Amino acid sequence: MKVEYINPFIASTVCVFDTMLGCQLTRKDPYLKGGTQPEHEISGIIGLSGKAKGTVVLSLSREAALKAAEAMLGEPTDDVDADVIDAVGELTNMIAGGAKAYLEHLEMNLSIPNVITGKGHTVEFPRQATPICIPFDCPWGLITVEFGLVEQPAAAML
Amino acid sequence: MKVEYINPFIASTVCVFDTMLGCQLTRKDPYLKGGTQPEHEISGIIGLSGKAKGTVVLSLSREAALKAAEAMLGEPTDDVDADVIDAVGELTNMIAGGAKAYLEHLEMNLSIPNVITGKGHTVEFPRQATPICIPFDCPWGLITVEFGLVEQPAAAML
Repeated sequence: MKVEYINPFIASTVCVFDTMLGCQLTRKDPYLKGGTQPEHEISGIIGLSGKAKGTVVLSLSREAALKAAEAMLGEPTDDVDADVIDAVGELTNMIAGGAKAYLEHLEMNLSIPNVITGKGHTVEFPRQATPICIPFDCPWGLITVEFGLVEQPAAAML
Repeated sequence: MKVEYINPFIASTVCVFDTMLGCQLTRKDPYLKGGTQPEHEISGIIGLSGKAKGTVVLSLSREAALKAAEAMLGEPTDDVDADVIDAVGELTNMIAGGAKAYLEHLEMNLSIPNVITGKGHTVEFPRQATPICIPFDCPWGLITVEFGLVEQPAAAML
């Protein structure tokens, strides 16, 4: 996967958290994800397809998800209910949408966001799409954005 | 969501399990999924985008995933390793690909399949995409295919 794909996802995540949630993220070093690693408790996931196809995963602790939903909806909540699920899904959608805009030449469209909950769940990528994991620090703890993109051969686009 | 979207997913799932795994599925009654319900232990998930966008989720018990991988790869395995993950992802990809072919007028493309593992995990859909859940019985136990599709307004396609 091309290194120049990383910055659009960093820029989009930082921008979405700042403008939508008033939350300043500090980026830590991206790394290639290997093997099965547990995620946080809540993951937003969305697919991309076009001249490249792939997936974006936003992983949050339960606490970070509640804080993000509170910042987005203007009301505190202490339960991962449908509002929190929708808030995490919408954040994932916006992060992927921002990166897609930076990567206009790949002409990608988004699927719908899904949100996975469950302690100790993992989200595995296909072997040909080893994901890059970007950790961010914020007042709510560590959050991560993972993405894997596979460029499509021109023939597959016909 | 239109009722005529259901049959393509049923037909595709039955065909993929029959031709790829030699496994005959018996369809049970589809239902609208409501609220948070635990899935099986392993879920393949893939996004669709085009004139409609959405997600397909294939949920399997651990045992069914191992049996499916064995049928696909020709070798027994007793651990959910990278081969089993790839087999479940590829099955999900083929089910979505078959349904996409039946729903040609929606001009959808697939993202890449991801596989979620973890006891008691749930996959939530956005509120505007209430998924239809199709259970199937087979010698390996119950498997389910869920899909949610949202048609895009013509303006969004420009």
